[in-house]
Amino acid sequence: MSTRTPTPQDKFSFGLWTVGWTGTDPFGGPSRPALEPWEYAGRLAELGAWGITFHDNDVFPFDADAATKADRVGRLKAECDASGLVIEMVTTNTFSHPVFKDGGLTSNDRGVRRFGLRKVLDAVDVAAELGATTFVMWGGREGSEYDGSKDLYAAFERYKEGLDTVAGYIKDSGYDLRIALEPKPNEPRGDIFLPTVGHALALIAELDHGDVVGLNPETGHEQMANLNYTHQLAQALFSGKLFHIDLNGQRGLKYDQDLAFGHGDLTSAFFTVDLLENGFPGRPDAPRYTGPRHFDYKPSRTEHMDGVWESAKACMGTYLLLADKAKAFRADPRVTEAMEYAGVPSLAEPTLAAGESLADFRAADDGFDPEKAAERDFGFVRLNQLAIEHLVG
Amino acid sequence: MSTRTPTPQDKFSFGLWTVGWTGTDPFGGPSRPALEPWEYAGRLAELGAWGITFHDNDVFPFDADAATKADRVGRLKAECDASGLVIEMVTTNTFSHPVFKDGGLTSNDRGVRRFGLRKVLDAVDVAAELGATTFVMWGGREGSEYDGSKDLYAAFERYKEGLDTVAGYIKDSGYDLRIALEPKPNEPRGDIFLPTVGHALALIAELDHGDVVGLNPETGHEQMANLNYTHQLAQALFSGKLFHIDLNGQRGLKYDQDLAFGHGDLTSAFFTVDLLENGFPGRPDAPRYTGPRHFDYKPSRTEHMDGVWESAKACMGTYLLLADKAKAFRADPRVTEAMEYAGVPSLAEPTLAAGESLADFRAADDGFDPEKAAERDFGFVRLNQLAIEHLVG
Amino acid sequence: MSTRTPTPQDKFSFGLWTVGWTGTDPFGGPSRPALEPWEYAGRLAELGAWGITFHDNDVFPFDADAATKADRVGRLKAECDASGLVIEMVTTNTFSHPVFKDGGLTSNDRGVRRFGLRKVLDAVDVAAELGATTFVMWGGREGSEYDGSKDLYAAFERYKEGLDTVAGYIKDSGYDLRIALEPKPNEPRGDIFLPTVGHALALIAELDHGDVVGLNPETGHEQMANLNYTHQLAQALFSGKLFHIDLNGQRGLKYDQDLAFGHGDLTSAFFTVDLLENGFPGRPDAPRYTGPRHFDYKPSRTEHMDGVWESAKACMGTYLLLADKAKAFRADPRVTEAMEYAGVPSLAEPTLAAGESLADFRAADDGFDPEKAAERDFGFVRLNQLAIEHLVG
Amino acid sequence: MSTRTPTPQDKFSFGLWTVGWTGTDPFGGPSRPALEPWEYAGRLAELGAWGITFHDNDVFPFDADAATKADRVGRLKAECDASGLVIEMVTTNTFSHPVFKDGGLTSNDRGVRRFGLRKVLDAVDVAAELGATTFVMWGGREGSEYDGSKDLYAAFERYKEGLDTVAGYIKDSGYDLRIALEPKPNEPRGDIFLPTVGHALALIAELDHGDVVGLNPETGHEQMANLNYTHQLAQALFSGKLFHIDLNGQRGLKYDQDLAFGHGDLTSAFFTVDLLENGFPGRPDAPRYTGPRHFDYKPSRTEHMDGVWESAKACMGTYLLLADKAKAFRADPRVTEAMEYAGVPSLAEPTLAAGESLADFRAADDGFDPEKAAERDFGFVRLNQLAIEHLVG
Repeated sequence: MSTRTPTPQDKFSFGLWTVGWTGTDPFGGPSRPALEPWEYAGRLAELGAWGITFHDNDVFPFDADAATKADRVGRLKAECDASGLVIEMVTTNTFSHPVFKDGGLTSNDRGVRRFGLRKVLDAVDVAAELGATTFVMWGGREGSEYDGSKDLYAAFERYKEGLDTVAGYIKDSGYDLRIALEPKPNEPRGDIFLPTVGHALALIAELDHGDVVGLNPETGHEQMANLNYTHQLAQALFSGKLFHIDLNGQRGLKYDQDLAFGHGDLTSAFFTVDLLENGFPGRPDAPRYTGPRHFDYKPSRTEHMDGVWESAKACMGTYLLLADKAKAFRADPRVTEAMEYAGVPSLAEPTLAAGESLADFRAADDGFDPEKAAERDFGFVRLNQLAIEHLVG
Repeated sequence: MSTRTPTPQDKFSFGLWTVGWTGTDPFGGPSRPALEPWEYAGRLAELGAWGITFHDNDVFPFDADAATKADRVGRLKAECDASGLVIEMVTTNTFSHPVFKDGGLTSNDRGVRRFGLRKVLDAVDVAAELGATTFVMWGGREGSEYDGSKDLYAAFERYKEGLDTVAGYIKDSGYDLRIALEPKPNEPRGDIFLPTVGHALALIAELDHGDVVGLNPETGHEQMANLNYTHQLAQALFSGKLFHIDLNGQRGLKYDQDLAFGHGDLTSAFFTVDLLENGFPGRPDAPRYTGPRHFDYKPSRTEHMDGVWESAKACMGTYLLLADKAKAFRADPRVTEAMEYAGVPSLAEPTLAAGESLADFRAADDGFDPEKAAERDFGFVRLNQLAIEHLVG
Repeated sequence: MSTRTPTPQDKFSFGLWTVGWTGTDPFGGPSRPALEPWEYAGRLAELGAWGITFHDNDVFPFDADAATKADRVGRLKAECDASGLVIEMVTTNTFSHPVFKDGGLTSNDRGVRRFGLRKVLDAVDVAAELGATTFVMWGGREGSEYDGSKDLYAAFERYKEGLDTVAGYIKDSGYDLRIALEPKPNEPRGDIFLPTVGHALALIAELDHGDVVGLNPETGHEQMANLNYTHQLAQALFSGKLFHIDLNGQRGLKYDQDLAFGHGDLTSAFFTVDLLENGFPGRPDAPRYTGPRHFDYKPSRTEHMDGVWESAKACMGTYLLLADKAKAFRADPRVTEAMEYAGVPSLAEPTLAAGESLADFRAADDGFDPEKAAERDFGFVRLNQLAIEHLVG
Repeated sequence: MSTRTPTPQDKFSFGLWTVGWTGTDPFGGPSRPALEPWEYAGRLAELGAWGITFHDNDVFPFDADAATKADRVGRLKAECDASGLVIEMVTTNTFSHPVFKDGGLTSNDRGVRRFGLRKVLDAVDVAAELGATTFVMWGGREGSEYDGSKDLYAAFERYKEGLDTVAGYIKDSGYDLRIALEPKPNEPRGDIFLPTVGHALALIAELDHGDVVGLNPETGHEQMANLNYTHQLAQALFSGKLFHIDLNGQRGLKYDQDLAFGHGDLTSAFFTVDLLENGFPGRPDAPRYTGPRHFDYKPSRTEHMDGVWESAKACMGTYLLLADKAKAFRADPRVTEAMEYAGVPSLAEPTLAAGESLADFRAADDGFDPEKAAERDFGFVRLNQLAIEHLVG
């Protein structure tokens, strides 16, 4: 039952804002002190993390001058270099300052949009300079509470304009950087634009520079839209757009809980890890996710600093436990048999035969009897029970 | 307070399965008799409907022979012709018969997939023959209860294969018909593939024949994914894919209620009608929805036949009421002023100036003071209150 | 469409924390300045409010000394007296300071429980001194994120102990004050104890001093438990426990939105006002709510001070509009007829006849034919459509 | 990983309607044949079940005459006797026949109410005759879709009248039988009366014969109200009313899934079993649940008869696995230490000292420093991680 200690080979990374969250919520102030960014980084390295990520204003204040920015980013970089941490992703905070109260890229105030876009571009430069390979964009304030407060068509135009501007700049600059959009259905806005993986993929399909724009799906965010997270990862992979991930935990339809990974829907977490570690069962050649195992969570406000580090360990420990379980699940001959019985591998077989014309297909007599076929026992419950037994057993 | 009587000019249409639902639910049997399809059609015409729609098996049984099919479809067509009804949309039932218990196009059983695909193609022929212009595809059984029971990548491949086969057939046949996908997050499956408008748009972007494939978003379905329906319509319009709509009512996160239009979230219904009737407020030239106002709802099981017709009248009556209110809302100078104050029209203005280079943009001094800009009062609450006063007043 | 200006006769009251919310949320800092409590009070009086309410720490800081408390409470009282405002309810903040991070009355830390209980008792004295008649207790931090972190039985014991101590003190002191519990299902805790009206009623039934303990149900809180708010008010009235109300707006299963009243589920708001203003339709003699129409909402963070006052006006304006509509709804002979048709008044008739013995009842031949009775058309949809037409028309 | 075979000592029981569900749902017909009640019972006995339960119409048709009823009940009883099965609970179907479309005890139609009440009383006699000790009442059709369609006060009066009539009859008859109410928030009605454990407890507190009326909380039902099931069990135990349980699985806010136990929220299932098997951690003397481990679930519609039995085995197997894990969790010294650290046992200590007067309490100087107390690390995340490691490890 003891969990393996994580190593950099596990490619675990953490946002500085995760262990750095001091506990302010809508009903109360901070319950923990704030450390310096490099202090969080150093401690994460000791716990076995491989990388870190941050928003610009996790490292320097909103109104910092150029010298302060350079100094603080430099100190963080130095600490990461010293402790062997990779800065794998950088993002922009376009949500905390009240200037962004109606959004950054889609604010009804054009001055704000211009200011927000510049802030994003500045953070892109920081990301490139630090060698990050992913640039996350979470438009948490892009949205509305009231349908009348936005021209929704114009909002999508402005979102596209903003994304294309940033993506075009990345390409023009020759940066080795890809944008990863992070969907979320609501909170802090009543309805956020790009509420789910699907909506973000749909907007990417309309971009001029969509080739460098993909997804950063977060466990809890998709679950807040009442959706299955593993299904979301699968559709993002199908569209070739799973660029990054945010793992955490959520317990149902409520405020964004950002619990430790595995402390939300555990069975879903098992299948998420199974997909990330073992790929699709019937399509071994299908695209796989090979990026960081990135955690975006919050240590509960009831915890002080000891609890902060325990929660970071919990995220990694649970992942490693689930990875072991998922390996054993896939290796179990009973599971292989149950998957065959359930027809899981056969879904990879095209419905039309190779070279079969539509006319031939429609005219063909497959000897198919729907009444008899309806009696098939798919054995999905037994297969799921095998998963539960592996998970719990 | 009396509502105008609907006329064919209002372009209201109804699924035969709506007024035809006899009340069977998971906990009880029918509470009403079943009429013949042409009887429903005739009555809908009397109530002022412009068109009807149906699934193949709303008109003929699952196992009907060719003669029975032709006879029953012919009788329905004759009734429609006689009463001036347009058959505007046809769809296939790939969910009621137990052969489809694991889906039609994505069943783990290839025999079922081939059978399902043929059934869809047959219905396409019926649709074309009757002059329908939209062919809806709702994959209600395409999905899973357990993550292990599907190879999710293969599922998207099969879904794409099925859709491309049907879309290619439509194009090859020269049919004046477009496919409209109907997303739904769950029920009857635990997690349905293409759970929201976004996911369907994302899959369409991967199709070979995506040009004839668009969306048929249903009010309650999107709300079951905790999403804002009007936002969904807007994103579908932004992607040029709002081909058809299903209007109804839903009261929160629960089973699919299919209430009469306006009997769910009334304020959302108001803004939906406002978008459909009046377009985007700041982008009068943006794409508009011009198709049928189609209702996909169920008369409550507590009602007998009188209540069935009352509920159909309620759908149309509420729509007309809301359309009047939305016109007045847009025409009110206080609303125009409040929209200006809120910056609604200015969101249509590009963030970068025409011809402005990125270098110029980043170097420009807009004289922007974020602290001052943060003090802007957007007046969204007042604008929403004006909408409520129009709606209720 | 213009709304009547509220007057003190309308008995509208506001929490100082409502107009006083400066916009801090989980993702951003304040967007508005903080005024002094008496400034909010004065402005609310000008807008037509009848009363105000507050938490202890809305008026004086957590660590204020006795002189500061007295001074600040005195200034507020003076302003209220001058402007004719009633201080109708007082409550305690046992959720903002991090000492309460695991609750006040049910913290796992006994020292905290003792401190929290004293803070509540102190606020009771303030309430009594100011002439408030209701003392609300919202245990927002009483709960857990993880099932293992609480002995749940002991938690209910401590909650009972705390409530009985406060209620007993009120009775012993001869205060003309009643406690009103405010249920909430989650946020800021993952699962809050007493998540709904039902749970609070159930705990009250176990109290020693439950006679002075009732309910303060909040619109959005009950809706966050996926429940019908009007049903909650009705059950509280049935138990004789509707002591106070918190009116606001919520749009579905998400974070606590605290929108203006009527800006959430409008149809539900209509029926809420109908119950508050007109009572039960078939039981005119049943208990009625006669207390303040109290708003517990937050002006959206996008608004500056103008928007704050507009939002307060919106709460009152919508209430008055809905009250007018509800009066007209009840007065409409078509509604009376539709209610009769639906059997609404006949539900007040006991199922057993007066004096009918159970033996007689079971033996009686009512001549009841279930097949025929099953054909009854209840006309619920038409009745609801009449409500919608009144509401919108 | 192999699970122990269940035995009657485990006290597992199943509703006949669970394995007997043939797969009809709102979008499709049956996918499995119907067996005779005694066939289901016999097979359940072979699988290791201890008991069965049923609705009247699971055994005989709605319109059966007295001879048919007696004959079919007799055959079932004979099978149970032969196979050693206990008939531990009986209930009434007041929801399937359309006569109950507006409810049984609270229908707006008094004739229906009288008919429904007689049907319930008849089932009580059957229950008593067969030696059942629990009589469940699930008022699935007691509710509404539209707030206007019910006099809500009268509805509670009629519910009370019905329950008191049945409870009084049980007492007068000297039956060794207790009523257990089963709450549910919605489905098949839009809003069901008694939506949660709390609401049912609240109504019981208003009954004349509440002493023989308690609760039968169902996992998925409470979760459909966005609530924590284990918290519900705890509050029912606190009120002395946990008479029976319905274990199953649900995956979030959607239609009633009735998945196998453990196939919903697995972590919640672990803590449920921990409470049932091990009681409250800090209050070993608190009331415990000692009744049957009753499953109320549905074998997924994708399964044929093999899958039905596999799903029944899954319910029991998962329970036994979780029971083992929960025992180990409680026995682990690290858990004991972490619970101490978290203050779990100390919540059982009264807030006021024994004999401490309120005056003394308020005047006492506990030497409490809130700033220092606020720094306490509760260690809830580590404790939860220990639970996850036990569960998964």
